[in-house]
Amino acid sequence: MIETGGRRRGRRARADAPAARRPNYRRLSHPFTPQHVFPDEAVARMHDRALWVLETLGVKILLPEARALLKGAGARVEEEAQMVFLGREIVEAAIASAPTRFRLRAADPQAEQMFEPGAMLFAAGSGCPNASDRERGRRAGRLVDFEAAVKLIHGFDVIHVLGPNVEPQDVPIHLRHYAMTKSQLMLAEKPMFVFGRGRRQTEDCFEMIRLGLALTEAEFTGDVWATTIVNTNSPRQIDSPMAEALIDFARAGQLSVVTPFCLAGAMAPVTVAGALVLQHAEALAAITLAQTAKAGAPVAYGGFSSNVDMKSGAPAFGTPAHIQLLIGTGQLARHVGLPWRGATGAASNAPDMQAAGETHMGLWGALMANATLTLHAAGWLEGGLTFGFEKFINDVEALQMLAEICVAPPAADEEAFALDALAEVAPGGHFFAAAHTMARFDQAFYEPLVADLRNFGTWEGGGATPADARATAIWKERLAAYQPPPEGAARGERVAAFIDRRTAEGGAPPSGG
Amino acid sequence: MIETGGRRRGRRARADAPAARRPNYRRLSHPFTPQHVFPDEAVARMHDRALWVLETLGVKILLPEARALLKGAGARVEEEAQMVFLGREIVEAAIASAPTRFRLRAADPQAEQMFEPGAMLFAAGSGCPNASDRERGRRAGRLVDFEAAVKLIHGFDVIHVLGPNVEPQDVPIHLRHYAMTKSQLMLAEKPMFVFGRGRRQTEDCFEMIRLGLALTEAEFTGDVWATTIVNTNSPRQIDSPMAEALIDFARAGQLSVVTPFCLAGAMAPVTVAGALVLQHAEALAAITLAQTAKAGAPVAYGGFSSNVDMKSGAPAFGTPAHIQLLIGTGQLARHVGLPWRGATGAASNAPDMQAAGETHMGLWGALMANATLTLHAAGWLEGGLTFGFEKFINDVEALQMLAEICVAPPAADEEAFALDALAEVAPGGHFFAAAHTMARFDQAFYEPLVADLRNFGTWEGGGATPADARATAIWKERLAAYQPPPEGAARGERVAAFIDRRTAEGGAPPSGG
Repeated sequence: MIETGGRRRGRRARADAPAARRPNYRRLSHPFTPQHVFPDEAVARMHDRALWVLETLGVKILLPEARALLKGAGARVEEEAQMVFLGREIVEAAIASAPTRFRLRAADPQAEQMFEPGAMLFAAGSGCPNASDRERGRRAGRLVDFEAAVKLIHGFDVIHVLGPNVEPQDVPIHLRHYAMTKSQLMLAEKPMFVFGRGRRQTEDCFEMIRLGLALTEAEFTGDVWATTIVNTNSPRQIDSPMAEALIDFARAGQLSVVTPFCLAGAMAPVTVAGALVLQHAEALAAITLAQTAKAGAPVAYGGFSSNVDMKSGAPAFGTPAHIQLLIGTGQLARHVGLPWRGATGAASNAPDMQAAGETHMGLWGALMANATLTLHAAGWLEGGLTFGFEKFINDVEALQMLAEICVAPPAADEEAFALDALAEVAPGGHFFAAAHTMARFDQAFYEPLVADLRNFGTWEGGGATPADARATAIWKERLAAYQPPPEGAARGERVAAFIDRRTAEGGAPPSGG
Repeated sequence: MIETGGRRRGRRARADAPAARRPNYRRLSHPFTPQHVFPDEAVARMHDRALWVLETLGVKILLPEARALLKGAGARVEEEAQMVFLGREIVEAAIASAPTRFRLRAADPQAEQMFEPGAMLFAAGSGCPNASDRERGRRAGRLVDFEAAVKLIHGFDVIHVLGPNVEPQDVPIHLRHYAMTKSQLMLAEKPMFVFGRGRRQTEDCFEMIRLGLALTEAEFTGDVWATTIVNTNSPRQIDSPMAEALIDFARAGQLSVVTPFCLAGAMAPVTVAGALVLQHAEALAAITLAQTAKAGAPVAYGGFSSNVDMKSGAPAFGTPAHIQLLIGTGQLARHVGLPWRGATGAASNAPDMQAAGETHMGLWGALMANATLTLHAAGWLEGGLTFGFEKFINDVEALQMLAEICVAPPAADEEAFALDALAEVAPGGHFFAAAHTMARFDQAFYEPLVADLRNFGTWEGGGATPADARATAIWKERLAAYQPPPEGAARGERVAAFIDRRTAEGGAPPSGG
C-alpha cells in the first residue's frame, strides 16, 4: 500500500476559495545554519596561502593610478611588469577597514536592504548578451528586453536588487549606460546597478542617480545607492575598467561587489581548495585597492567559482564542485568577517529539467553557504549568455519557496499541535472541515506561481501545458499588467536634460582594458 | 564586465580525452549537519503530545490479531470500536527495543547497506500505477515497465534499494507478487522490496527469497533480506494488510518502513507541527505493534508528509511545508534515536522544470533532514501516479551530484592549495596545461549523465535536444546494454517450481482492508 492511495483521497476541491495570501519576501534572513566543507584550520591556512600569493606572486593591475595608490600604501610595485605585491599588513588593514554591514538604499524605502552577514538577497540573472522566450526565440539583447526584465523584477519582491539582466545591444555602447540607468529609475524602485566600464560612464550614472532620486552630493556619497560587479581577470589580474570602478565606487561611497570568476581547471587550479586560494587572493587584492582608495568604503567579498568539464573545457554550473566552492567561499568570507556574494547558474541551453536542476543545486549551495547576495538566481541560461523569460518565472517559484521557509517558520505552540483537531477528526477521516483547518486554511501554505497541481486528466484536457509554456503566459500577463512606480516618470524627467546634453557631447565610451 | 566573458574563454576543447572516471556511490553518508525547524524543547513536547494522542485518543486497528497482541502488552482495547489506546510505557518500551542499526542484505554483498542514522540511501519512485516515456506515452503499468525500472536501477549504484516502482497491472493481483519478486531476484542484486498485501503473499515472497538466494530459514530470519513500506491510513488508523505486514515482517526479522502519509490540511492538521504530532503518533503506534510482535525486530521510523493546495485540495510536493515537515521528521526521529525514511516528490504531470524543481526541493529537504532513506528520489511524476523514465534519468543526475559531494570532499592539503600552479601560470593565463591540472584533470570533476554542456550553437546545430529527449536516448541505451547479473538466471530457476505450484494452487489474493 504505497503513498498514491492517500493522494487520490486528497483530491477533493474546496468550494470556498481562500482569500489572497500576500507573504512579504522583501527582507530575508538565512533560515539554515551554514555548512562546512573544510575544517576551520584549513580555512585559516587557505587565508594564509592567499596572503602569500599576494605578497610573493603578486597581482597584475593594468591601471597605473591603481598601482600608484597601492605603492603609496606600502605595496611593492614592478611598474614595467604592472605587478603589485601586497604585504599582508596592507591586506589585513583593508579587511579591518571594510564595513561588515551597510544599507543598500533605493527609491522605495520598503525595497532597501541591509547588506550584512546572515541576510539573504537574490538578484536575477545578469550580464546576458542575449534574451530568449518561447514566443520570440533567442535574439541579441535589446533595450526592450532589459526593460521587460526590470518590469518583471519590479513585480516580484523576492528579487531584491536590480542588475544588468540583458545587455541592450541595440543601444550604442557609448550611450547604453544612460538608457539602462534611466530604465532602472523609471521602471522600478529597488537598489540600482551601475556597470564599471570606465570613469566617465560611472560619473554619468552617479549623476543620473543624484538627479533622478533628487539627492544632494552628500546624501549620495553618504549611503550606497549604486552597486557594481567587479570581476577580476583570473588568474591574478585586474584590468583598467575594473580597477577604475573599484577606485571610483569607493571614493563615492558606492558598492563594489568583488567577484573573481574562478572556473576550476580553466582560469583557476583544478582543485576546489586551489581555486579558492586564488579566488580569495584576488578578492582581497580588489578589496585592498578599494580600501586604499577610501578606507571604510562599502565592498562585498565575492566569488563565482564553478568548474569546467574536463573533457570539453566547457563551464559547468550547479555541479558538486560549484556547491563545494560556494560553501568554501562562505567559510572564507566568515573568516574575514565580510558579507559576500555567491551565484547559482545553469549551463543548459533550454528551459528544461537540466536548467532547473542546475539552478536548484547552485541555489541550495548558496543557501548552505549563507551567501549574502546570490546572483543569477532567476533567468540565467547558457552559462549567462542568455536571459530566458520562461526560466525566470520558474526560478522565481524556487526563490519564493526558499523565502517562504524564511518568513513562515512553523509555529510550535499548543495551538499548532492541533490536539483539538486530532480529537475532532475520527480515524480514517479528514481535516478539510476541522475548525483548526478552517481557521487557517486561507493562509496556511505557499501558493504556486507556475506549478500546476491539477491531476493528469484535467491537465491533459486543458492542453497538457508544460512548465515552460505556462511561464510564457505568466510573464506576458505580468508585463501586460505592469504598473510603473508613481514617481518613475518624474525621475525620468529629472534626468532627461542631462542625457540630452551628454549625448550631444558624444556620450562616454567604455575605458580600454 | 560580467561573468560571461570568462565563460567564453573557458570554451576550449581538450584533444586528450580523460580516462573514464568511475566514482562509487554505493555507500553514502550524509555530508551535511542536520538542520532544525523546531527548538529541541518543542520536539520533546511534540513527542509528549503524540504519546498523549496514543494514550487518550487511540488508534483504530482493523486487524483483530493486532488488537489482541497489543492488549496482551497492556494496551486498553475497545474491541467493538476497533480502538487501541497505547499507554506511554508500552510505546517507550517499543522505542527502546527497536534496533538503531541493522544491515540490509542483498544478493550482491557490494550492494548491502547499513540502515543507520547518518547513512544516506536513495530509492527510486515507487508505487506508481502508470508508466510514461516519450516514445510510448503514458500507460497503465505493465510487468515489462517494472522490469525496465529494475534493470535501470541495477545499473545506477546511486539507487540503493529496489522498490515497487511500477505496478504491473497486466499481471493478475493474486499472482503479481510472484512476478515482481522473481524479477527482482533475476534482474538485480540490491536489497529487495516485498509488498505488505496480506499474510499469504508475504509468506510466498519470503519463501521465494529463501529459495532464490538459497538461504536457510535461520539465515533468512537472522538478517534483513526484505523491506516493506507500511502506510498508515491517516488519521489514526491501521488497516488489516498493514497490521498483518507489521506482524509478519517483524516475526520474520524483515524490515517494515513505517510511513504515515500525512498530507497537512487533508489527512492531517493544517499546521506543520500538528501534522508531525499525528505522523509521530502513527509511526510510534506501528512501531509498537511491530515490537510487540517481536521485540528487536528491524523497523524504520518514517514520514511522508507534505501539504495540499488549500484552493483545490490537490497534493503538493517539494513545497516549503514539505521541506519543513522533512526537517521536523528528522528531529523527531533523532529524538527517538531511530533511522528513518523520508521522501521527495513531484506533482508535475510532465518531465519539465516544475518536476525537476519539486524533486530538487524535496531532495535537499531530505538532505537537510538527514533522512536515512529517501524514497521517490528518481522517476516520480503526478504525485506518484506515474513512473517517468525521462524523469528517472534526470533525477539520477541530481542524486549522483549529491553523492559526489559525499564521496569526494575537497582535499585541503598543501598540494590541493596548488601554490606551484599559481606560481606557474602567469596573470591572465590559464591552468589547462599546468602540471597540477594535468596530474588531476581526468579524475577532477563529476561527469554529467544527461546534462549537455555544449554551447548554444553546437547544441542547436545538433538538433536542440532538451533534457527530456536526451534522457530518452539514455534509458534506451541503458536497457539495450543491460546485462543481467550472472547468478540471476539460476535464482530464477530456483523459484520456478514454487511459482508453478502456487499458481496452480490459485496464487494469493491480497488481504481485505
